[in-house]
Amino acid sequence: MRLMWKLCLFMLLAVMLVNVVSAQEARPPVVGAEPAKAEAAAAAPNLPEYFTATNKDPQKPAWPDPTGGASGVWATPAGDGKGDVPEQLKPTDLYDRILHNLYAINYVWALVAGFLVMFMQAGFMLVETGLCRAKNSSHTAAMNLMIYPLGALGFWVYGFAIGWGNWWNGPVPPGWYPSLGPGLSVLTDGWGLGAAVDAAGKATGAFTYGLIGLKGWFLNNAVGDTGVMVLFFFMMVFMDTTATIPTGAMAERWAWKSFCLYGLWIALPYCLYANWVWGGGWLAQGGVNWGLGHGAVDFAGSGVVHGMGGVIALAGAMVLGPRIGKYDAQGRPQAITAHSVPLVCLGTFILAFGWFGFNPGSTLAGTDLRISFIVVNTMLAGCIASISAMVTLMLRGLKPDTTMCCNGMLAGLVAITAPCAFVTPIGAAIIGAVAGFLVVVSVFFFERRGVDDPVGAISVHGINGIWGVLSVGIFATGEYGAGWNGVVRDGFVKLYGADGVRGLLYGDFSQFFMQVIDAAVLVVFGFVMAYVWFKISNLITPLRVSRATEIEGLDGPEMGVLGYPDFQLSSSGQNIAR
Amino acid sequence: MRLMWKLCLFMLLAVMLVNVVSAQEARPPVVGAEPAKAEAAAAAPNLPEYFTATNKDPQKPAWPDPTGGASGVWATPAGDGKGDVPEQLKPTDLYDRILHNLYAINYVWALVAGFLVMFMQAGFMLVETGLCRAKNSSHTAAMNLMIYPLGALGFWVYGFAIGWGNWWNGPVPPGWYPSLGPGLSVLTDGWGLGAAVDAAGKATGAFTYGLIGLKGWFLNNAVGDTGVMVLFFFMMVFMDTTATIPTGAMAERWAWKSFCLYGLWIALPYCLYANWVWGGGWLAQGGVNWGLGHGAVDFAGSGVVHGMGGVIALAGAMVLGPRIGKYDAQGRPQAITAHSVPLVCLGTFILAFGWFGFNPGSTLAGTDLRISFIVVNTMLAGCIASISAMVTLMLRGLKPDTTMCCNGMLAGLVAITAPCAFVTPIGAAIIGAVAGFLVVVSVFFFERRGVDDPVGAISVHGINGIWGVLSVGIFATGEYGAGWNGVVRDGFVKLYGADGVRGLLYGDFSQFFMQVIDAAVLVVFGFVMAYVWFKISNLITPLRVSRATEIEGLDGPEMGVLGYPDFQLSSSGQNIAR
Amino acid sequence: MRLMWKLCLFMLLAVMLVNVVSAQEARPPVVGAEPAKAEAAAAAPNLPEYFTATNKDPQKPAWPDPTGGASGVWATPAGDGKGDVPEQLKPTDLYDRILHNLYAINYVWALVAGFLVMFMQAGFMLVETGLCRAKNSSHTAAMNLMIYPLGALGFWVYGFAIGWGNWWNGPVPPGWYPSLGPGLSVLTDGWGLGAAVDAAGKATGAFTYGLIGLKGWFLNNAVGDTGVMVLFFFMMVFMDTTATIPTGAMAERWAWKSFCLYGLWIALPYCLYANWVWGGGWLAQGGVNWGLGHGAVDFAGSGVVHGMGGVIALAGAMVLGPRIGKYDAQGRPQAITAHSVPLVCLGTFILAFGWFGFNPGSTLAGTDLRISFIVVNTMLAGCIASISAMVTLMLRGLKPDTTMCCNGMLAGLVAITAPCAFVTPIGAAIIGAVAGFLVVVSVFFFERRGVDDPVGAISVHGINGIWGVLSVGIFATGEYGAGWNGVVRDGFVKLYGADGVRGLLYGDFSQFFMQVIDAAVLVVFGFVMAYVWFKISNLITPLRVSRATEIEGLDGPEMGVLGYPDFQLSSSGQNIAR
Repeated sequence: MRLMWKLCLFMLLAVMLVNVVSAQEARPPVVGAEPAKAEAAAAAPNLPEYFTATNKDPQKPAWPDPTGGASGVWATPAGDGKGDVPEQLKPTDLYDRILHNLYAINYVWALVAGFLVMFMQAGFMLVETGLCRAKNSSHTAAMNLMIYPLGALGFWVYGFAIGWGNWWNGPVPPGWYPSLGPGLSVLTDGWGLGAAVDAAGKATGAFTYGLIGLKGWFLNNAVGDTGVMVLFFFMMVFMDTTATIPTGAMAERWAWKSFCLYGLWIALPYCLYANWVWGGGWLAQGGVNWGLGHGAVDFAGSGVVHGMGGVIALAGAMVLGPRIGKYDAQGRPQAITAHSVPLVCLGTFILAFGWFGFNPGSTLAGTDLRISFIVVNTMLAGCIASISAMVTLMLRGLKPDTTMCCNGMLAGLVAITAPCAFVTPIGAAIIGAVAGFLVVVSVFFFERRGVDDPVGAISVHGINGIWGVLSVGIFATGEYGAGWNGVVRDGFVKLYGADGVRGLLYGDFSQFFMQVIDAAVLVVFGFVMAYVWFKISNLITPLRVSRATEIEGLDGPEMGVLGYPDFQLSSSGQNIAR
Repeated sequence: MRLMWKLCLFMLLAVMLVNVVSAQEARPPVVGAEPAKAEAAAAAPNLPEYFTATNKDPQKPAWPDPTGGASGVWATPAGDGKGDVPEQLKPTDLYDRILHNLYAINYVWALVAGFLVMFMQAGFMLVETGLCRAKNSSHTAAMNLMIYPLGALGFWVYGFAIGWGNWWNGPVPPGWYPSLGPGLSVLTDGWGLGAAVDAAGKATGAFTYGLIGLKGWFLNNAVGDTGVMVLFFFMMVFMDTTATIPTGAMAERWAWKSFCLYGLWIALPYCLYANWVWGGGWLAQGGVNWGLGHGAVDFAGSGVVHGMGGVIALAGAMVLGPRIGKYDAQGRPQAITAHSVPLVCLGTFILAFGWFGFNPGSTLAGTDLRISFIVVNTMLAGCIASISAMVTLMLRGLKPDTTMCCNGMLAGLVAITAPCAFVTPIGAAIIGAVAGFLVVVSVFFFERRGVDDPVGAISVHGINGIWGVLSVGIFATGEYGAGWNGVVRDGFVKLYGADGVRGLLYGDFSQFFMQVIDAAVLVVFGFVMAYVWFKISNLITPLRVSRATEIEGLDGPEMGVLGYPDFQLSSSGQNIAR
Repeated sequence: MRLMWKLCLFMLLAVMLVNVVSAQEARPPVVGAEPAKAEAAAAAPNLPEYFTATNKDPQKPAWPDPTGGASGVWATPAGDGKGDVPEQLKPTDLYDRILHNLYAINYVWALVAGFLVMFMQAGFMLVETGLCRAKNSSHTAAMNLMIYPLGALGFWVYGFAIGWGNWWNGPVPPGWYPSLGPGLSVLTDGWGLGAAVDAAGKATGAFTYGLIGLKGWFLNNAVGDTGVMVLFFFMMVFMDTTATIPTGAMAERWAWKSFCLYGLWIALPYCLYANWVWGGGWLAQGGVNWGLGHGAVDFAGSGVVHGMGGVIALAGAMVLGPRIGKYDAQGRPQAITAHSVPLVCLGTFILAFGWFGFNPGSTLAGTDLRISFIVVNTMLAGCIASISAMVTLMLRGLKPDTTMCCNGMLAGLVAITAPCAFVTPIGAAIIGAVAGFLVVVSVFFFERRGVDDPVGAISVHGINGIWGVLSVGIFATGEYGAGWNGVVRDGFVKLYGADGVRGLLYGDFSQFFMQVIDAAVLVVFGFVMAYVWFKISNLITPLRVSRATEIEGLDGPEMGVLGYPDFQLSSSGQNIAR
């Protein structure tokens, strides 16, 4: 407990320190340097020049740009005595204003999508809480509530820096559109194997095998750019999805302090692996380095987000062990039912709603019109998967368990997350149908194997995350993703007109092979990191609550407030077995 | 039950078959055909041409366009060594980029609006579940959960094709802006009476009395265009609103398998009627053919969506009969209370939130600035209606029943859905005030008549849907909707400057008459279709659960999971009368 | 009760009256006046001119503009036989289309943000209901449901007019971008001290000390402009946040009729104070008039919205007195626990989600790229605050009470609301850390002082609202907000390049002083207004329910429906002390 205080206080102190440091950096330029700037900019004749925030010298743009003023001009209508006079504008001025609109559309899209992803936290909270017993509802809800701040703290302090600190050296060139503006060019510092050099033999900052980013700690002023903020926000809410998945698999027995430590740690494995796949790291470079398709392709994170969460959940559930009463004396699994089915259904809908930010938002561009395909594919896969799960249950002679229908829908959404931009609606439906079947089979499998996962997180996110990663290598049509991860192969261009991401059904087996490698790295890296962490963290503060606490329910002993104090609970909500 | 398996398996098989077929269609063009394309496109000098995805030959655009690349150019900023060089762009190049931004704005708007509409499913789930008894909560929630996938499956397989397969021959010309881009021009196949011919005597694909669309089954590659995907998504989530309305009126006694069959069927009546009103079919053509205003006008679907849902709900509730205990031996209605008022209120808020997608999103264009009026009208009508319902109750000496306030708000939202774009805020308030009164009166009316509607769906969606359709013909001001459904009358243009949609208070009685016709068609067509369906489907698998199941509650016997196993239910949640 | 009917009926009558009056205003121009308009507009050659809705004579734009047609041209692509022919467009035509896109982006952004803010009502409903006892859940939910319509009614009838009726004389010039288009120029009527005159000695409509706006009652046709509708909507949903805050502090004992009266009144104090700070009134003019920074700066309303709500809540809770059983015979506070922790957590997430509309939406411009900083600051402050609140509790030896973690997050969000656009992410984190500490201390403080606030609304919104207002004067960096409230000081421009909003840590102490004045005015004005109102309204209809009703629970006696009739409540949900 003391450790926690120290950790927290340390972080607050660090914040203040960084603030002081970067306030220094942020100091106004010395006055003498100003006059040079004070000329130029005749576009807005009636306003003082310092007022327009235009990029005065486009030859040497000064990023970071904290107001976005340098990313094209914010057009002001004529006729009100201020601002643009349309008759005086040259085509390049018009282009400037068109571009500002384009950035604005992309910002609005990415931010709104990010809001929806953040709202998914509420969905996770409801699904996981609803699937637990009433006696643990306050504790489960609190874990899902606080993982958002705890994860955000870690991501802000160090996660963004190691995951996206070298973004500009990664996915942008060639042909990957910097949809959030040129300010992302400040994200240049990282480390890896095999430093790349330019024609002049000078290190470019990129590496043949990128391993880690190293810029943007505490979002200090060196990265204080509007485009960077969009990227930070979007990636932050993605990480919280990963972070919240294990709270489901480890619910009803995880000690609060151990959970808090975990919340500060989760950014580490997540951001490392994300750097490898999304930050232009060594897995993304598999196409360029090894000729395997376009390298690892995971559009919105079946693997990076969900697979990682599921694998960590598996390690956690294994280290933690099953709940008291989950297995009888003969080791046979016992049913422990959801305490509130309506909340589970609500949570599922919130997640499905948020997924419409998750997948199409991952273009980071509303001007990439492929978003509409992504939306339709996302919807279809989720829907078909829930029907598939229901049918799978009924074919086994079981009833169409409401909560399993929910998990079916989520499984389909997880699976379509990686391939959503690359497949046809019919492909999406097939991916969903498989996912719905997989989740049912997987839930029973893990239950029989003694892995107690109260909400099915391992099956929904882990198994189907991997299925999603693989499905890119099967169903991607090649229509979209030309130049992805810097790969442009002349052979494919000649054959198909463009070299998009292409699965084995459409002629590129090497992409599938790369996806298998990606999935394998994910499973091994994620599981080892998590297993070691849970073992070590157990030495700091115990992972699991006492037996008495678990039998009583965690709400009172751990959180100090019961979930439902005004209601009389049935014995099922109270006794050991249930 | 076996039937269901077969149906589901058949559909999955059909999916795969279609996939194979359309994979054939999607084949790359033969290599020899490429060179012709490989010239042109000098705009992006530093990128390989196949990389820009520009529409190389604007004279003959090649829709469908699966990446949106042909809908204007995705502008790239200069100065980073790639993409546009602003100094070299001509005005037509600039126009291209402006247009791409415009499409992007419209896509973003329509998609985000569609997300909100999809989220309304959660609102329906909560309102309906909350208004039922705890013993049926898992079943009611499950119906509202699964209607989304089941409805989506039907819509995807055949609904979109019959509803919107001939969209391009319908509402677009003249003057109806193709806000989602020219790719919608692939939606050209339909059928009707009186094939239209062009000047050369050749069939145009349009009909004097359009009856049905016939393109886009399974969203096959022939309609694989980004604009079509936006339309599909938006219309799909609309249909699910219709689909979920009857689950409220038929709750607490509807057998699961019968419900599943219904879910696959609902796209049929919905899409047919939607084709007539929104797809440019015979009701929309009432203005052109018969001189009645602008033909049937239903902006966002008071009739198409809510009225249809309400009428089907009425047929269903009548065929199914009242719940056990709803009427005493003398036939007097007994109160059966909502099991969770907070969930009902939450659901109402989610619906009101989603309606901000429903109504203004129906412009399918964020660049149509009328959206702000639509938003304000939607808000005012819903708010005034809930106050009106509360006042109506209290004037009758009743207490301000929380759930009735909820239904009042929903009634106002339903009523404003058709006229929202055409009326003033003051008009919207009056429409809402009437709706709030109507819903209270209607709920008592149907209850007295022996129609047991646990959630008031018939009154909220049916009665107020019709009121909404009629109110267009009363309160539309003529400011908006010039050229709607292809109608431009010189007399009105001379008198008012433009021929917008105009109600009888503003000088066009013929519009009101057309709205009456529309409402009558809706009621007759919807009721007959539904009544026949429920009777027939009852022969396939019984519509209603057994008496024992109903008394015990449907959760266990039908779904296999109880809604609230950890809570002790009072007798009210368990015995027959309640 | 009769009074209420009369009030309501009066309002409906008034609506109809205004409708008749403004229908007169809205009449078509006499036919003879038309020909002058009928020339011009050659841009869209294939459509009848009245069809394009273009602004025919840009020299004298005719606002209000109910369709948005005058705010730039809605571009139509060439090649479909209608609309623009790109080759024929001049640069000014292109500018027109760029501008229309810009307005559309801003509309879409402001409206979507407003939707999120409206959805916060659901969050408030859940937090407040969840924190109350089950026996009052229907009543608390109903208050939070109906405050939305009741507040909207007041705002529509008179609130918007007094708050924003003179907007055009306020924040727009100089340099404040009219992001919603020139149609806002219809908002010109207000009143104040010291009428401003132009060079010719003619009154401009502005005042040295602006006090109140006077245009837009009932949103009549004189303000029937698309831009005005966006402003109305966004400001309306903001006010409802203020309106709903006191329902938490006064829950579990407030009589329904008294609450309804309050709902119609709340627009009065809110809109007056909002006019002073946001409408360019005397507090905003503190910079120009008194040389104090940029005048009162409150970006998204820590003070205007939350502080005001918190202060009114304090007055209300004091006048109403504590709940029966809250204090024992010795005056010691007793714990009264939340009846549903999951609902409280869900509500908190919905609020945090909605805040992403609240803060960045307050730019009223998606094209102001500073939105991304606002989003990141908002997220960080809320997250750090919830951790800070948890740590504060645990440092005091208490358990990490789930509901207090929720209140911590809300406190951080409240505090960052005013400074969100002006501070760095690190500044936002510090503001949040302080907020989380403050809310815990404050809750215990008010509880000890005998102010019974069931949900902590006074601490969350009042105390942290004030902290937010002050924090602008401490942490604002000066990077953003150049020319805010019309202040451009040459000294700061020379020193820093631009005169943005700047707190004392960055060199402008006068801004902090102005923020102190603002906070003081807020507290005194809000408290006095509310205290007097509650005293007077108590004479009209009693503020508090009877003792018997309070002990039984307000659900049955006041609303006529119980919150959870199917569940057996424990004694904690029923007896006096709980």
